Amino acid sequence: PDVQFLASVLPPDTDPAFFQHLRALDCSGVTVRALPEGSLAFPSVPLLQVSGPLLVVQLLETPLLCLVSYASLIATNAARLRLIAGPEKRLLELGLRRAQGPDGGLTASTYSYLGGFDGSSNMLAGQLRGVPVAGTLAHSFITSFSGTEVPPDPMLAPAAGHGPRVDLAARVETWLERVCGHLGLGVREPHRGERAAFVAYALAFPRAFQGLLDTYSVQRSGLPNFLAVALALEELGYQAVGVRLDSGDLLQQAQETRGVFRTVAAQFRVPWLESIPIAVSNNIDEQELARLSQKGSEVDVIGIGTSVVTCPRQPSLGCVYKLVSVGGQPRMKLTEDPEKQTLPGSKAAFRLLGSDGALLFDVLQLAEEPPPQAGQELRVWPRGTQESCTVRPVHVEPLLRLWVQQGQLCEPLPSLAESRAFAQQSLSRLSPAHRRLEQPALYQVALSEKLRALVDRLSAEVPSESPLLGAA
Amino acid sequence: PDVQFLASVLPPDTDPAFFQHLRALDCSGVTVRALPEGSLAFPSVPLLQVSGPLLVVQLLETPLLCLVSYASLIATNAARLRLIAGPEKRLLELGLRRAQGPDGGLTASTYSYLGGFDGSSNMLAGQLRGVPVAGTLAHSFITSFSGTEVPPDPMLAPAAGHGPRVDLAARVETWLERVCGHLGLGVREPHRGERAAFVAYALAFPRAFQGLLDTYSVQRSGLPNFLAVALALEELGYQAVGVRLDSGDLLQQAQETRGVFRTVAAQFRVPWLESIPIAVSNNIDEQELARLSQKGSEVDVIGIGTSVVTCPRQPSLGCVYKLVSVGGQPRMKLTEDPEKQTLPGSKAAFRLLGSDGALLFDVLQLAEEPPPQAGQELRVWPRGTQESCTVRPVHVEPLLRLWVQQGQLCEPLPSLAESRAFAQQSLSRLSPAHRRLEQPALYQVALSEKLRALVDRLSAEVPSESPLLGAA
Repeated sequence: PDVQFLASVLPPDTDPAFFQHLRALDCSGVTVRALPEGSLAFPSVPLLQVSGPLLVVQLLETPLLCLVSYASLIATNAARLRLIAGPEKRLLELGLRRAQGPDGGLTASTYSYLGGFDGSSNMLAGQLRGVPVAGTLAHSFITSFSGTEVPPDPMLAPAAGHGPRVDLAARVETWLERVCGHLGLGVREPHRGERAAFVAYALAFPRAFQGLLDTYSVQRSGLPNFLAVALALEELGYQAVGVRLDSGDLLQQAQETRGVFRTVAAQFRVPWLESIPIAVSNNIDEQELARLSQKGSEVDVIGIGTSVVTCPRQPSLGCVYKLVSVGGQPRMKLTEDPEKQTLPGSKAAFRLLGSDGALLFDVLQLAEEPPPQAGQELRVWPRGTQESCTVRPVHVEPLLRLWVQQGQLCEPLPSLAESRAFAQQSLSRLSPAHRRLEQPALYQVALSEKLRALVDRLSAEVPSESPLLGAA
Repeated sequence: PDVQFLASVLPPDTDPAFFQHLRALDCSGVTVRALPEGSLAFPSVPLLQVSGPLLVVQLLETPLLCLVSYASLIATNAARLRLIAGPEKRLLELGLRRAQGPDGGLTASTYSYLGGFDGSSNMLAGQLRGVPVAGTLAHSFITSFSGTEVPPDPMLAPAAGHGPRVDLAARVETWLERVCGHLGLGVREPHRGERAAFVAYALAFPRAFQGLLDTYSVQRSGLPNFLAVALALEELGYQAVGVRLDSGDLLQQAQETRGVFRTVAAQFRVPWLESIPIAVSNNIDEQELARLSQKGSEVDVIGIGTSVVTCPRQPSLGCVYKLVSVGGQPRMKLTEDPEKQTLPGSKAAFRLLGSDGALLFDVLQLAEEPPPQAGQELRVWPRGTQESCTVRPVHVEPLLRLWVQQGQLCEPLPSLAESRAFAQQSLSRLSPAHRRLEQPALYQVALSEKLRALVDRLSAEVPSESPLLGAA
């Protein structure tokens, strides 16, 4: 049906042999070299090298760009967010609803994990990709309770399993009085429906009780209600696992909430309550993340949706897929924009390292050239400059690996968790100047002398100094 | 397997009856009211109203947000771009490679068409959604030719079908001399490989020949090569269908290219060549689109990819899905941000119009209230103000329609083309002040007195004037 559709939109005199040819196509002649997932990639270094029958590899252009660009963008964005948050905060991706459909959301969840997040609320990403899943509860769960509901069974057994069952709902009311007394709140101030929701949640998940605090008012409702349930559970040997704040000034509220936890923990002698994890969410961008991650922040878990999924600072990554060689002959596109010129020829890429393992720069050369040797001087031409320089690397790492040969996978792909670890390890090797998020130092990518000479030769083939007509 | 996975990540003591219950769920109890696709929607007016069993409609939250938000964003973005371009320019969506995967690209192609584009290069959107598909040729097709290739069959029959076949490649060389002579170019300046690509394309698609002009140099290579092939085809009765520019100053190059078309059309007496469509592409954003659409622009077709698909001005639309009623009882979320408060209760929405059909404003009221009547005075409370006003509408349009009742579709969905026409018609009814793209006049959405009173009553249930602890 695909070929049939194609025939219906192409000119009616299209050679029928073309459609026959399309029907017989497959990827058995395609070979793919690529950077391993999670690699640091700098502009001009190929992410993928695809070779095979011309028509087939041309048909792969859009699918590969579509699959690689967004995944790389998200991984990069997640890595930035991780660098901002530091290693300690737990970062959760919560952006499925802001993705371009469920498929985009799946990619976002997968590659934000690869880039350094700890998990996602996207269950499908857990099921299909092994991303750790986590989440809290929804406002709609809380607002669905008015407080007049009667739990089908309010009795809960102690965590240890033995001992009499206790009416949790009744214990919560008792604890509410104590908590409100301690906090100077009227016992009728906390919302009954919210409390009923917390009790229902605690009865269903006594070992995983958590509270969403901001449905009505954090300080006057969500927090006392949560504490009443948490303390009633505590009597039975259960520890609540966390709270979430989803509106208002998150940093300030986390600090206030932690303050309340501390005083309540002391008052009622429940030490673990002091350090209960506080999760926050609500349109957190890079700037707000930096604020929430500052020293003294009482925030433990940070959920980010829109900002990780849509990458508002740069919503697309301009990956391109260019023909560089046909039948062993190099090809080059010159165009009217020097930036859109391509680097001709089948290439190899190497990362040069100094004595301390520091990254010096990446070198692109023609595939047929011998690889750079550790300890040997090399003359290269950094991109964007007109001058060459020499370097004597202490280590040389080839960047591209053969993954698919003639349509067959050559080695097992690393797991997502392995790629995630590799990404963090790769980032840690980058110098602070290159790693900083605002105006980072430019990491150099250089051409070998032979590649540079080929670019010069092909550029000279078409004169393009001045337009033929029109202004200047 | 979905429920199995869920069980594996929920606490191990989760009630097994919950999983049994999930396995038995379906949407047979769900009823959906919605704005028809392509409607103008203003903040606070529900796009969708979903009712049914609480658990089921809560499970629908993320899928519906995921499907509705991006589609609405893209349609809105496309409508903006159409307003900027004006009705005459042909707008093509070319953004598949910048989408969040093929599924996001499909949504982008579908809803950019709904929003006012003319078509897409995404073949799957043509096949699955009936979006008109169009495209040009790729740089990689052109760079794949070196000029040493021999066409398998260079002979082409005249368009009329009778008469001797002609060696097109040879005729092109003859025409190249004439064109270069006329333009003052050396005959060896135009790139041979580019010409070979054009000839191959013309032999395959003589009735649909088009040129991509900027692979090497528009003025010194692409344009003379294109003209040589177009004029050789013209001798056989074929008319070329267009050219594309993909780099450099697109407006200026289109003007220069049009100038060359005019002089060549006059010189060789081929009048149709003057007005051959010029298509442009290359990171066109709203500002560049306005420039390309200005009076006197020689651009006919504008291809937009990244800017339509990723919506860089606002990469996400903050749709929410909120519980407003349970068992007939209204529910409201207050939160710490007044902006995140919800409007309680099951609601109806109406658009009020003046005598000339001009839109006055939209009114939200409780579902049980009688609809506003044309010619009758109505007191309403515009959102964001503290004062009421009265209005006497000449026409009243209900906004929400019943689409799905108890899981069954009630009426056939409109076709994509119908929704597209409805969107353009809806936009045309909007006043210029509301339609302008920068700082548009605010379109008012108002609450009925009863809805307003309900909001006040529920807001008063929880005191939230001041935080309990912390600053101020």
